Amino acid sequence: MSATPGSFITRHHHITIATGGAQQDYDFHTKVLGLKSVKKTAFYDGEAPIYHLYYGNDAGEESSLVTTFPVAHTGVKGRKGSGQISYVSLSIPPAALDFWRERLTTHGFKVTDTERFGERYLDFQHPCGVDYSLVAVADDARKPHSKGPVPAELMIRGTHSICVSTRDAEPMEEFMQLGWGGTRVAEDRNLLRYQLGKGGSGTIIDFEVEPSRKAGTWIVGEGTVHHMAFQVGSHAEQDQLKLHLEAMGYTDVSDVKNRGYFDSIYVRTPSGAMFEATVTHDDGFTCDEPRDKLGLEVMLAPQLKMSREEMLAQLGYLKD
Amino acid sequence: MSATPGSFITRHHHITIATGGAQQDYDFHTKVLGLKSVKKTAFYDGEAPIYHLYYGNDAGEESSLVTTFPVAHTGVKGRKGSGQISYVSLSIPPAALDFWRERLTTHGFKVTDTERFGERYLDFQHPCGVDYSLVAVADDARKPHSKGPVPAELMIRGTHSICVSTRDAEPMEEFMQLGWGGTRVAEDRNLLRYQLGKGGSGTIIDFEVEPSRKAGTWIVGEGTVHHMAFQVGSHAEQDQLKLHLEAMGYTDVSDVKNRGYFDSIYVRTPSGAMFEATVTHDDGFTCDEPRDKLGLEVMLAPQLKMSREEMLAQLGYLKD
Repeated sequence: MSATPGSFITRHHHITIATGGAQQDYDFHTKVLGLKSVKKTAFYDGEAPIYHLYYGNDAGEESSLVTTFPVAHTGVKGRKGSGQISYVSLSIPPAALDFWRERLTTHGFKVTDTERFGERYLDFQHPCGVDYSLVAVADDARKPHSKGPVPAELMIRGTHSICVSTRDAEPMEEFMQLGWGGTRVAEDRNLLRYQLGKGGSGTIIDFEVEPSRKAGTWIVGEGTVHHMAFQVGSHAEQDQLKLHLEAMGYTDVSDVKNRGYFDSIYVRTPSGAMFEATVTHDDGFTCDEPRDKLGLEVMLAPQLKMSREEMLAQLGYLKD
Repeated sequence: MSATPGSFITRHHHITIATGGAQQDYDFHTKVLGLKSVKKTAFYDGEAPIYHLYYGNDAGEESSLVTTFPVAHTGVKGRKGSGQISYVSLSIPPAALDFWRERLTTHGFKVTDTERFGERYLDFQHPCGVDYSLVAVADDARKPHSKGPVPAELMIRGTHSICVSTRDAEPMEEFMQLGWGGTRVAEDRNLLRYQLGKGGSGTIIDFEVEPSRKAGTWIVGEGTVHHMAFQVGSHAEQDQLKLHLEAMGYTDVSDVKNRGYFDSIYVRTPSGAMFEATVTHDDGFTCDEPRDKLGLEVMLAPQLKMSREEMLAQLGYLKD
């Protein structure tokens, strides 16, 4: 098997998490974490309306994005476990650690100081129970949300790393190296660190090897991460990646799905986590609303056979 | 989540196994097991030529089919483990048990008599190491290969069951019941039995719950089962199944792939095993060669950029 050129997959694009109530999720990301609402739309799969909420920096750039499916109204609960992305770490400036510890504590969150790979983390949980972390990263040049409740110099820069809980490292390491173009760069206790493209914050995937941990769910279930999306440079590279993975035996690579703002393929990895490889549309998030109004109004998902009013009546209006 | 109507997926279609040398594989299936060569073609994914060999009954009917990718020439080795289909069981008449035990032993195979779910099995291995079993099944009306080295009344009827080794039963049981339309019908020690459609031989999936077993590989690697294919009644039902699984969160359902003789979608299941849901073309295996010449000549795979002669020069001619 030949390896995928590492340059195909350059960095994180967004993470997608199944959370609880939509208003609670919105308030947590915009008021506590201070991220910008970049897009309010709905889950593109299935006929039941579910919000898809995008949070990020001013323009909603790749690797600044945390996205959620609030599913409390569906009643579908997830179970955390192995074979799943266990937490997402968001990058903050080292000088902002004390600010964030106090801010989160003041908002009623339990914060734990930890260290991994020589980096300092503040671990806490989304109100629905999903694990988040803020990590002190020097030299992260990504632009933060500049008009939110948190001063720009202290603000989150974007996703730093994800951590995948896996019972077995071996098949995943093979997939990372031969299939996903990753490079193994560090090891810390039962953690393995991979990076993509040029490396650094926003390109990192950690694997926590937990041989005895029971498997979590793969459904869109409340309280679990659903998948991680990575940026690919072009549709031609995405097509080549799909053919490459299929030739290796990963026949379940999805068709290219138009997600409105980007085009995506999905594959289940041997760690159990689902990865997405996506190409941003030229007009990205500004295709359906102007740059200065991003994330204010709800945009319909194309498969929903209902009006915006019916959708909002079912999902509830989100208050800023 | 609503459940998939059980009638969508009716029975096994074929199993696909990555084996070793092509001639060894051909001789094992046609001369030892006495199956008919139904089609000789190549793996439809990737640019490296790999045979795809189909063995079955006279017409190559659904659920009579064992198919293989002989990959010795690629050098890619698989590792057996959990998250994988661990063996396939083929149905024989109860009166044929002694015949087969002697036949396999005479051919140099080590045969072990076992019992599962009250059924009698003869366990043995393909020469490349993949586990096979013959199981005594009364009342299996499927037609056997009638012109092979084994008398029809003693001959294999088709696939009876597959066994999937999984570390965790819970997410897979949810998938089987809500996603794949299966019914749990029996339990035996650490084995769970599901059946599809009307049930019976050729519809069975067993799960062996092995929490401590290290994961096997998912690549097309010598000595491992790659996936199991199941029959779906129509393209409309296949489309509905794909949408249903995607809405549950199984976003990695593949596009519909024209495999020359049938159209397939693939999805990775929470057990780790990959399942295929396929609709046989109206003209099936007779689309490129007449019924009375099935499986004699090699048919090209469409993506290979080479002539039949080049392909055969690389793969070797198969001798009957």
